[in-house]
Amino acid sequence: MKTIDILQAVQAGKLTPQEAELKLKMQPYQDIGFAKIDHHRALRQGVQEVIYGASKTAEQILKIAQAMDAHGDKNILITRMKPEAAELVGKKLDLFYDPLSKIGIVNREFIDTGDGYIAVISGGTGDQPVSEEAALTAEALGNRVERVYDVGVAGLHRLFAKLDVIMGARVVIVVAGMEGALPSVIGGLVDTPVIAVPTSVGYGASLGGISALLTMLNSCASGVSVVNIDNGFGAGFIASRINHMGGSK
Amino acid sequence: MKTIDILQAVQAGKLTPQEAELKLKMQPYQDIGFAKIDHHRALRQGVQEVIYGASKTAEQILKIAQAMDAHGDKNILITRMKPEAAELVGKKLDLFYDPLSKIGIVNREFIDTGDGYIAVISGGTGDQPVSEEAALTAEALGNRVERVYDVGVAGLHRLFAKLDVIMGARVVIVVAGMEGALPSVIGGLVDTPVIAVPTSVGYGASLGGISALLTMLNSCASGVSVVNIDNGFGAGFIASRINHMGGSK
Amino acid sequence: MKTIDILQAVQAGKLTPQEAELKLKMQPYQDIGFAKIDHHRALRQGVQEVIYGASKTAEQILKIAQAMDAHGDKNILITRMKPEAAELVGKKLDLFYDPLSKIGIVNREFIDTGDGYIAVISGGTGDQPVSEEAALTAEALGNRVERVYDVGVAGLHRLFAKLDVIMGARVVIVVAGMEGALPSVIGGLVDTPVIAVPTSVGYGASLGGISALLTMLNSCASGVSVVNIDNGFGAGFIASRINHMGGSK
Amino acid sequence: MKTIDILQAVQAGKLTPQEAELKLKMQPYQDIGFAKIDHHRALRQGVQEVIYGASKTAEQILKIAQAMDAHGDKNILITRMKPEAAELVGKKLDLFYDPLSKIGIVNREFIDTGDGYIAVISGGTGDQPVSEEAALTAEALGNRVERVYDVGVAGLHRLFAKLDVIMGARVVIVVAGMEGALPSVIGGLVDTPVIAVPTSVGYGASLGGISALLTMLNSCASGVSVVNIDNGFGAGFIASRINHMGGSK
Amino acid sequence: MKTIDILQAVQAGKLTPQEAELKLKMQPYQDIGFAKIDHHRALRQGVQEVIYGASKTAEQILKIAQAMDAHGDKNILITRMKPEAAELVGKKLDLFYDPLSKIGIVNREFIDTGDGYIAVISGGTGDQPVSEEAALTAEALGNRVERVYDVGVAGLHRLFAKLDVIMGARVVIVVAGMEGALPSVIGGLVDTPVIAVPTSVGYGASLGGISALLTMLNSCASGVSVVNIDNGFGAGFIASRINHMGGSK
Amino acid sequence: MKTIDILQAVQAGKLTPQEAELKLKMQPYQDIGFAKIDHHRALRQGVQEVIYGASKTAEQILKIAQAMDAHGDKNILITRMKPEAAELVGKKLDLFYDPLSKIGIVNREFIDTGDGYIAVISGGTGDQPVSEEAALTAEALGNRVERVYDVGVAGLHRLFAKLDVIMGARVVIVVAGMEGALPSVIGGLVDTPVIAVPTSVGYGASLGGISALLTMLNSCASGVSVVNIDNGFGAGFIASRINHMGGSK
Amino acid sequence: MKTIDILQAVQAGKLTPQEAELKLKMQPYQDIGFAKIDHHRALRQGVQEVIYGASKTAEQILKIAQAMDAHGDKNILITRMKPEAAELVGKKLDLFYDPLSKIGIVNREFIDTGDGYIAVISGGTGDQPVSEEAALTAEALGNRVERVYDVGVAGLHRLFAKLDVIMGARVVIVVAGMEGALPSVIGGLVDTPVIAVPTSVGYGASLGGISALLTMLNSCASGVSVVNIDNGFGAGFIASRINHMGGSK
Amino acid sequence: MKTIDILQAVQAGKLTPQEAELKLKMQPYQDIGFAKIDHHRALRQGVQEVIYGASKTAEQILKIAQAMDAHGDKNILITRMKPEAAELVGKKLDLFYDPLSKIGIVNREFIDTGDGYIAVISGGTGDQPVSEEAALTAEALGNRVERVYDVGVAGLHRLFAKLDVIMGARVVIVVAGMEGALPSVIGGLVDTPVIAVPTSVGYGASLGGISALLTMLNSCASGVSVVNIDNGFGAGFIASRINHMGGSK
Repeated sequence: MKTIDILQAVQAGKLTPQEAELKLKMQPYQDIGFAKIDHHRALRQGVQEVIYGASKTAEQILKIAQAMDAHGDKNILITRMKPEAAELVGKKLDLFYDPLSKIGIVNREFIDTGDGYIAVISGGTGDQPVSEEAALTAEALGNRVERVYDVGVAGLHRLFAKLDVIMGARVVIVVAGMEGALPSVIGGLVDTPVIAVPTSVGYGASLGGISALLTMLNSCASGVSVVNIDNGFGAGFIASRINHMGGSK
Repeated sequence: MKTIDILQAVQAGKLTPQEAELKLKMQPYQDIGFAKIDHHRALRQGVQEVIYGASKTAEQILKIAQAMDAHGDKNILITRMKPEAAELVGKKLDLFYDPLSKIGIVNREFIDTGDGYIAVISGGTGDQPVSEEAALTAEALGNRVERVYDVGVAGLHRLFAKLDVIMGARVVIVVAGMEGALPSVIGGLVDTPVIAVPTSVGYGASLGGISALLTMLNSCASGVSVVNIDNGFGAGFIASRINHMGGSK
Repeated sequence: MKTIDILQAVQAGKLTPQEAELKLKMQPYQDIGFAKIDHHRALRQGVQEVIYGASKTAEQILKIAQAMDAHGDKNILITRMKPEAAELVGKKLDLFYDPLSKIGIVNREFIDTGDGYIAVISGGTGDQPVSEEAALTAEALGNRVERVYDVGVAGLHRLFAKLDVIMGARVVIVVAGMEGALPSVIGGLVDTPVIAVPTSVGYGASLGGISALLTMLNSCASGVSVVNIDNGFGAGFIASRINHMGGSK
Repeated sequence: MKTIDILQAVQAGKLTPQEAELKLKMQPYQDIGFAKIDHHRALRQGVQEVIYGASKTAEQILKIAQAMDAHGDKNILITRMKPEAAELVGKKLDLFYDPLSKIGIVNREFIDTGDGYIAVISGGTGDQPVSEEAALTAEALGNRVERVYDVGVAGLHRLFAKLDVIMGARVVIVVAGMEGALPSVIGGLVDTPVIAVPTSVGYGASLGGISALLTMLNSCASGVSVVNIDNGFGAGFIASRINHMGGSK
Repeated sequence: MKTIDILQAVQAGKLTPQEAELKLKMQPYQDIGFAKIDHHRALRQGVQEVIYGASKTAEQILKIAQAMDAHGDKNILITRMKPEAAELVGKKLDLFYDPLSKIGIVNREFIDTGDGYIAVISGGTGDQPVSEEAALTAEALGNRVERVYDVGVAGLHRLFAKLDVIMGARVVIVVAGMEGALPSVIGGLVDTPVIAVPTSVGYGASLGGISALLTMLNSCASGVSVVNIDNGFGAGFIASRINHMGGSK
Repeated sequence: MKTIDILQAVQAGKLTPQEAELKLKMQPYQDIGFAKIDHHRALRQGVQEVIYGASKTAEQILKIAQAMDAHGDKNILITRMKPEAAELVGKKLDLFYDPLSKIGIVNREFIDTGDGYIAVISGGTGDQPVSEEAALTAEALGNRVERVYDVGVAGLHRLFAKLDVIMGARVVIVVAGMEGALPSVIGGLVDTPVIAVPTSVGYGASLGGISALLTMLNSCASGVSVVNIDNGFGAGFIASRINHMGGSK
Repeated sequence: MKTIDILQAVQAGKLTPQEAELKLKMQPYQDIGFAKIDHHRALRQGVQEVIYGASKTAEQILKIAQAMDAHGDKNILITRMKPEAAELVGKKLDLFYDPLSKIGIVNREFIDTGDGYIAVISGGTGDQPVSEEAALTAEALGNRVERVYDVGVAGLHRLFAKLDVIMGARVVIVVAGMEGALPSVIGGLVDTPVIAVPTSVGYGASLGGISALLTMLNSCASGVSVVNIDNGFGAGFIASRINHMGGSK
Repeated sequence: MKTIDILQAVQAGKLTPQEAELKLKMQPYQDIGFAKIDHHRALRQGVQEVIYGASKTAEQILKIAQAMDAHGDKNILITRMKPEAAELVGKKLDLFYDPLSKIGIVNREFIDTGDGYIAVISGGTGDQPVSEEAALTAEALGNRVERVYDVGVAGLHRLFAKLDVIMGARVVIVVAGMEGALPSVIGGLVDTPVIAVPTSVGYGASLGGISALLTMLNSCASGVSVVNIDNGFGAGFIASRINHMGGSK
């Protein structure tokens, strides 16, 4: 119910001013006419509601997932899901679970509603958990994903062998730890948005991913933006938004 | 000349293998069939070539700009242009120059080739140089820009009065210094990609923008990615890419 | 015994100068006339003595608590109390224990001696341990507390639905991890002192709470002061002091 | 005009729903019933509006100050005011200007509306600019201020000679650079809120105030909260809020 | 055998130049006339050889200690000795072991060869392991030690009650974690060298002792020098050196 | 097959241009004439392929090692090999395993193909794991290695007793933790390249090796370059490269 | 007047208790019997009062120095004295001024009241300002000083040529920038206390002296304690204290 | 004069033991038989002595250079030479001076005594001062240098066009600021030692070169070692050492 509707109901005598005021308060700030937000939430919930598993118990996750399942939701995405939570949820619901990235998806179904595909590129095998977090997130949000793994800058020929897949993507996610140089190289090759994800992979002066993060922020290639260390979910989410803006490349 | 053409020329006897090898070397890696890159560079140069003014002398900038002007280029963008460079270039060419953001544009012409408009939002008056760098960059790259300035999180009512402009944008750039909290708030309101730009505005423990940068990387709102401190140009460039992907919201 | 009393005893011949000098030494600096301190300690002990549980064994905690209990103390506050200490103390004394915040209170009794109430606001579910440390501390120190949890800046409508509770408080404690932006938003809404508590919740570049700490220190909202990372106790203690200054809002 | 008034005007036919909706939008979120904010802003503006001089030109400062002066405002506070701005404003208005703290006050008038007095304590002569920023801010906001300067921890006797002034205050601001230990010592002596302000005074590993900031955050004394490095204004503002809560110690 | 002796032996025909050269090589650089070093080593070994237990196995420690015991050494000091090593050594030798500081002393014997006594002062109970490492080290090296524990800056009266003990010492070791302010206060009270030891005690922004370290380095009190975080051994060693320089205060 | 060969095959009609293009794509960028790389890879694989054990399972390591063994490879180097992997591989293949440095070598065979020998110098016993990683790496890559351990800067005579070994080396690797001063001292003594390896050995402000790293980067001795913290492998690899450049000192 | 005297005056009827209490308050905590402090201050002032020139105007410095000169003081030490202050003071008083270290000494007179001499050792020419600050401070405080400059670790032979001077000192101050390794080497050679002073000399990752500071804190040599970056005065002051403890080596 | 000679002189009665001892002291530790060092110094001085200009006055530089010139030295290298020093020296001696890198060379003469050539590669125009410092240093030390400038990772085709020059080098110096990714890419292409030099070029989170430094230390390519930020001289020096080891690739 929009503000204008509430006000017309008052004018029509269907609501007292007091009832109207309460309504305005109860339906937070959307009541002031921000229908778009409401609409967008509705839409978003139509696709799926994301459950952040990190700070929830197995039982809490199950309860939310069951409620969503009862509404007929598909691709219910659960991030940072611990194995014990997966075990519990898996007994009650149709759960896909990837222990590497700790992504769980209830009622998984491949739906491609995007404008093109998303390429997820990573430098080393150690980056795979974060890469998969990004890839599975993007898939659960309705995108086709092409994985291009293990193509670090110290072996450019492996990267070049995959250049057409990379350059054909609508959005590119680049996951890299250690020195984090891969997004700069990719950013110089493609003309699509590049989302860089530093990982905490490395040792010594890698400083838990800070080193890779700094590298990416200082990238000399235009078109590269950065998310937090190990934040594969965030990258997948942003990439999905861009891939759902409508139109084709 | 593509690889296949070179090879056919060899087959046809028009090139000796030695001449062909030289050609392959001289026309870098594009020769191996990465026509897209070449094409994309051509396209990009067709719109404009960016001149990074920071490490160039006034004379160098002038020379490049004149060469581009001779090719009939419009909206020749010059970043971090010092006033003395602007003075020299302004005498010879049709230069727009904003001393605040140090952006110069030769043969400026408003062309809107984007899919929607880009909103550039900033928190305080001190953030304006970086905001304008982003806004003018985006305009020079063919985007319509809506500026929403001085709407910091400590006075949410000012932000809310502009919500329809913000929510109607195809991409949102949020520029903020000090505590850098604005992108998180915006990210919770819109469903479009948010590019966050930390600025070095602040004092004490703002650490030259590091504090704002960390805030943005840790944003609890999904859909926010970050560029380097004070990198208004980078944000405008990325936003333009997204706004030129085709399709409408 | 105050300095003036000692001196008069000397004058009266009841004490030799040597005895008096010893007395002055033995009763530390309060003896020199700082009656207020003495008085204040007496008053404070009347309410309760705080037991810092972190560096004490279960037995040590029990012994102190029993001594205080023998004096008839109520609301004996124990911070950072490990479960094993709680188990031991709980067997001998009437202990309230919250395993989340690790706060223990012996002889808990709700006493409201404050001038108004304290609002404890937190951004995410992960911040709850620290929030409860603040809330339970404040309650044990004689304050009424209103909890407003899970109202992060990325979902302002939830925050707004609680605005009257927040704005009616005499002091506001804001607990937030990750990007730590909540105090800035709250600080712009209320006209009461805001105590900001950064938490170590987050990952990647949250740097164990440093990121949130910096955000809060750089808050563009006036009226915000900050305590150490995860220091819920400190925030509750300060808020209680302010809420016990006398007068009503 | 409150929300309820707008709604009643609609019911009474004095406003069409469309006009009402516009009003609701134009008068930001205060319109939804948050009268307190409005009231508080009115009150605050009645006392004074703070002009942050750091990012404003001399002319801008003059214009704002003149507008406020035209409304009959007293104690118009200008922070971080550069000497050249002071020179310009001083020619047109009745300006008090302290070049050390860079605080300017137009139409200065000592008004004491506080519940008690605020003590501003500092450790070394180098801390005086920040101390005065705090003290003059508090005075301009209607507080009586007692200055206790040059009482560093390395000479406790000087501090002790002033203990009654310190202990009689309603709020204590402690300004210290270098090792920043003073707030811990003060915090152990008083039972009032202590606002600690680290300064950038020092050299070597003082790291521009970071060292003092860390010391204060880690204070072992309860009751100490901290503001940003060199933020004398913030400390004075918070102290004033606490000193205006009503009641007497 | 000193250089001059070797040379005289050559002159006297008791050594060929070749034999002399070999001798000069075999007895490292002391051979060039640095008899003092040799002498000092001899003297030091006479008192005891320190065994750094951190990177040695229980067996290695035992073997070294037994060799020293066979030479009749007293007060054989073992630092960072793990409980399992203590158990093994304790079975074979007369071992004193303090599990808190992880200091082990074989053939302990109180010998006071110092010029005065060393005061070891600490702020909180959590600092005791490091304090004891310093105190036991100093004792093993032949010093009388006075312990003054639990006298933090937030309760100066406890510190003052012990002032004569502190001021009578020949060297003062001050151990403090959290904000690390104690050495500054002590440094302002005494006229003897103060060795400050930061500890890793604390949480939040204490940064594992870095905060206390910075405080101590920035001490405004003259006469304070600093050793590494948690380095109680180093402080005890230096204090012993100063206390063995000869002469009395 | 080199580019020129492919082109000649086209000219000779043995390959169609299409087949040739495919070949060029399949054999990455080496196909464009970078025969050296190819050659060097061939050579390198002839000596051995390095298996990074850190992010591989025991099974993965075994599989790769078996494949290499089947090709008759000697000195198959496995870094950061966990004991459980060593146990598995040791059952199937002829494995040398050093649990300290976690280096495994399958089909170990001492081959000296270098121009001289490499000296590996370390300061303390705690640095031995990294030192051995460097030494065993260098040996597996065909170098003679001289180990000079436990010669820290605080006991120069031990270092001097080994000076001829150090000065006779063709390349010197210096491994040091704590203060990391050893490379500066060595760098002032020798005229060969010095590779410095900081280790994470130390405590307190050693910051996990950052302190030693900074020391080495700031070395006042010319001729010192640095690798990452604990990166013994990298140092051994670089030293081997230099020792295989041909020629003798 | 000591506490006991005051008390006896009360007993004798020469003071009323009220007058006595006032006296006790006015003569801070020394009144409680800490005669040593008083004595020590008297003594210290007898030698000289240090004037910290950094935060004082030329006029302020002059006034203090003149007052001290009027009392017949010798060796009035002024640190961080700017040239313009030196010029002013030099016109009125007998001033020695070293522009390099910015040390000024009024009524300079070489007095040797120490137990031995102090060696000031530095690594590079760039360290000389700080070295001289230490040396001149020590001299002004009544010590004989031996300077051993330009003996960095990268050229040990220069250091060794001076070993007898170094080893004969009662206290050693070691000043070093860049990698700061010198104190570790010296600490391994001497058996006297070593005061290490990091300097801000260096570039790149020397981080304004932080790198040298960390090196010194992590020194593997026992007997080394550290003062703040560039704090030559502090080192000279501490060394003087140790050199005035009485007795001879 | 070697140790053995001194000893024989004693035996022969040509030196008294006292005279011999003095000689041994005066001719530092080389006297004990480390003839190689002496020899190496002689050799090195034969080529040139490096004058560090940063901390020397123009007059000091001139004096040293003149003394060396009087000995007939060629290629006298002066680093970090300020323009005013260059002006003075240029008047008296035959000086080559590059104002960009601040390298001065007296009696410059191209001599190629190396085993191959050194490639100096840099990413951006802003890196040129450091690149030239490296290149001119290497040339002055007797190496042929090939410059490959402006080949950043964001435009790989420019790099590839120069691959044969890069791959033919005996040693490679890679200079890069901003994200510092270039050495990783180069390190993956060549089989020669790579010396990486981070530069302080960049802004925002480049942290004065720390970001590039960390990237390089974390390089995933083997064979890369690193020198300090902006230390072009150090890189040139090391590269020269390697290029003078004898033998050819």
